Amino acid sequence: MSTSHIEELRAAIGSKYVLEGEARGPWCHDWTHIYSGDPLAVLRPGSTEDVAAVMRLAHDTGTPVVPVSGNTGVTGGGCALSGSLVLSLDRMNRIHDIRSEALLVRVEAGVILETLHAVVSGHGLTFPMTFGAKGSAMIGGMLSTNAGGSNVLRYGNMRDLCLGIEVVLPNGDVLNLMSELRKDNSGYDLKNLYIGAEGTLGVITGAVLKLVPTPKAFATAMVSVPGLSEALGLLNHLQTGTGGAVEAFEYMPAAYFARFEELYPDSRPPFAESHEVNLLIEIGALAARDATPTEDGSLPITTYLEELLAECFEEGRVIDAVIAQNATQRAEMWARREAAAEVTLSRRPLVNNDIALPLDQIEAFFSQMAERLEGIDPDADALSVAHLGDGNIHFTVYPSGSSLCDPIMEAVEDVATAMGGSFSAEHGIGLSKLPSMRRRKDPVALRVMHQLKAAMDPKGIMNPGKLIPDQNDWG
Amino acid sequence: MSTSHIEELRAAIGSKYVLEGEARGPWCHDWTHIYSGDPLAVLRPGSTEDVAAVMRLAHDTGTPVVPVSGNTGVTGGGCALSGSLVLSLDRMNRIHDIRSEALLVRVEAGVILETLHAVVSGHGLTFPMTFGAKGSAMIGGMLSTNAGGSNVLRYGNMRDLCLGIEVVLPNGDVLNLMSELRKDNSGYDLKNLYIGAEGTLGVITGAVLKLVPTPKAFATAMVSVPGLSEALGLLNHLQTGTGGAVEAFEYMPAAYFARFEELYPDSRPPFAESHEVNLLIEIGALAARDATPTEDGSLPITTYLEELLAECFEEGRVIDAVIAQNATQRAEMWARREAAAEVTLSRRPLVNNDIALPLDQIEAFFSQMAERLEGIDPDADALSVAHLGDGNIHFTVYPSGSSLCDPIMEAVEDVATAMGGSFSAEHGIGLSKLPSMRRRKDPVALRVMHQLKAAMDPKGIMNPGKLIPDQNDWG
Repeated sequence: MSTSHIEELRAAIGSKYVLEGEARGPWCHDWTHIYSGDPLAVLRPGSTEDVAAVMRLAHDTGTPVVPVSGNTGVTGGGCALSGSLVLSLDRMNRIHDIRSEALLVRVEAGVILETLHAVVSGHGLTFPMTFGAKGSAMIGGMLSTNAGGSNVLRYGNMRDLCLGIEVVLPNGDVLNLMSELRKDNSGYDLKNLYIGAEGTLGVITGAVLKLVPTPKAFATAMVSVPGLSEALGLLNHLQTGTGGAVEAFEYMPAAYFARFEELYPDSRPPFAESHEVNLLIEIGALAARDATPTEDGSLPITTYLEELLAECFEEGRVIDAVIAQNATQRAEMWARREAAAEVTLSRRPLVNNDIALPLDQIEAFFSQMAERLEGIDPDADALSVAHLGDGNIHFTVYPSGSSLCDPIMEAVEDVATAMGGSFSAEHGIGLSKLPSMRRRKDPVALRVMHQLKAAMDPKGIMNPGKLIPDQNDWG
Repeated sequence: MSTSHIEELRAAIGSKYVLEGEARGPWCHDWTHIYSGDPLAVLRPGSTEDVAAVMRLAHDTGTPVVPVSGNTGVTGGGCALSGSLVLSLDRMNRIHDIRSEALLVRVEAGVILETLHAVVSGHGLTFPMTFGAKGSAMIGGMLSTNAGGSNVLRYGNMRDLCLGIEVVLPNGDVLNLMSELRKDNSGYDLKNLYIGAEGTLGVITGAVLKLVPTPKAFATAMVSVPGLSEALGLLNHLQTGTGGAVEAFEYMPAAYFARFEELYPDSRPPFAESHEVNLLIEIGALAARDATPTEDGSLPITTYLEELLAECFEEGRVIDAVIAQNATQRAEMWARREAAAEVTLSRRPLVNNDIALPLDQIEAFFSQMAERLEGIDPDADALSVAHLGDGNIHFTVYPSGSSLCDPIMEAVEDVATAMGGSFSAEHGIGLSKLPSMRRRKDPVALRVMHQLKAAMDPKGIMNPGKLIPDQNDWG
């Protein structure tokens, strides 16, 4: 790509939206500062037509393109590549067509999650995905990584919450899949192929997202149970009891609380005694009958959760429980959970991961891992936090030395894979998980992925080197 | 493919499972008797290895393969092609690994839906998909068409209900995507590409399916409302009121009841007076508190539905309502709805379709269609039955002459497409919807589909001529 091509880009999308030199600054590295690159330019298109114009020129000149939105992913999927064009979707941030009856909203790819939350809440509706980076994450990146978070249990991940998308293809053609339909069997499921493709097949520029009615009240509790299999039993008991209204079912072990209390010495522990297996549970009440305070001021949904837990307590399936009595107590429970990044990253060296397991294999995973760690590094500490309700575990290990990181990561993957688990539940592959992809992904699946990539991006210009390991590495 | 190849097939899967001549009988045509063909042979493999052996030979010899399971699809997607090998999955009918805690089951592709219902019900669980052909439809075909039915509103379609699949690729390689995970972001979403591909990319041989707890009670009602926009309002009111427990929300107009009563003169009409917009509504109660009879013998879930409907009645949003008081009354309500095929197919000529619309466009669709029909054929009658809760309408028109069928189908598609609707909601494309696909599908989407087909089935042997129109027809 020559200087005259850069001039063409200036003419196409506006000169001030073509950033070179120092102006590229924030886009030359991702927020982890692990990955960085020296892109030709950073482009900030304002419309789908702008993106199409960029892609046509990139296609003609064989120039790599790296789409980026919030730039706060954790695997390096959006990090700049030297010699590439970085395509920032941040200016495409319009929210339009909030349709209360049809329960959907049409958005551009650069809308920030927290902004979307705020705008739709004015209509009594919720876009029911939330996670720590909600103040920076944008819809385009969330779709490209099929983002998850704490409410997947009830509402699903981005794939489940998305009715339609618009994609600019590598050659600049615009693929309009902006469906508002709940059912559509007219051909291959292209939508789900672009969702989770981490920008390697095209640029997602817009989406139709599902909305849900905002729960009228929440019942939130900290609960401890004898073991992880009792946790799964409790989840199923609560799901049946509430008709599937469990919004969050999050696991924190005693070690998590201990570390949290070291970091926040003013915090109060949730229970008088320390317990090994602790859960943050939240039930969302949609119905007025569950959310209207009774004469004594209590909420029926809270009373009902108390009753369900009391049954389990009598049977020994619950050891301890505290139900939030007001919004402050609820916020305190969530703050403890949402400090996960600070809590787990506060010691080095560490082995961090994002595995998923079949729901009924989680207890076996922990016991097998304890055994494996004993063999590799008896002095290692482990500390987990998990979206237990959907089988997603962030299992952090602190080895006694950096040289043990790789063998421990291999052991985690060995154990998870042998149980039918995944080495990447919600964070995606990007660059950081390419070694795991090479080692662990079914070679037949890798071959099919490679065929798809070659067919849909024949010049290999879309976010090259991410997501799919080089073919030489796996045959 | 020569006689010696047929001998190889006999050696691979067992001689008695290679059917030639008369023995091919039932597989030479589909149940509609619209489509028929003269296949080389019908093969009945007993295992994934058998299927792989067949595909390797078909691949080596460039022989087309048509996978078929229940053979009761409605678009000709599974119909035999002359010169092809028909691959019947009917012998692969094992159900294994019902996992109550993890809420999943592993099945082979030839399991019949009704059989699966019966087997999992013994565990207090439900596979929550149901439709008229449940006694013949098999999991493989249901996945290949991404089947829908009456409970999609609450539980989703096959894509939503499937955690993992096993696919034999065109070259005989086995792609193991038998995930049991609720979250897995390790690469492209291959699973959803094979689901709904109607056997044009590979042969689905097995699946991991989600199960749900069986509702402990149902509240079922026939309700009439002033118009279709009130119907959508009522749906959202009931969803909020019950926390999303609406299992079915089915629409039948007065004309449907009138025709039903002509065909079944002994039946009793649901209401004393005739109303234009009628709904069959069913709520499923998971919680014991909703399903335990009170002192007067009534079920709380029924009482609650009565209260919700009474509120709407007072506001004029509901005109009439009858709640089933026992299992017999519930069965009667469902029998009226499930006679849809008999009711709609009982007159000829007819224009039949399977459209999907955005939820808030349904009323506008009906009024625009009335206007269009007035222009094309003022004597035409229209009669609809709809899975209203998910926007899927089977809009049947009886023209005054056969020559008007095509213009009317075009008009239905014109109106639906202009509103962002689809010409195929749940039945798929097969052969019968190829003209609609050619006329209506976004050409960019058709091109991407063609790229995928060419990359994943380079010899073009998988169910050729189905789903994707010839490239010559759309450029």
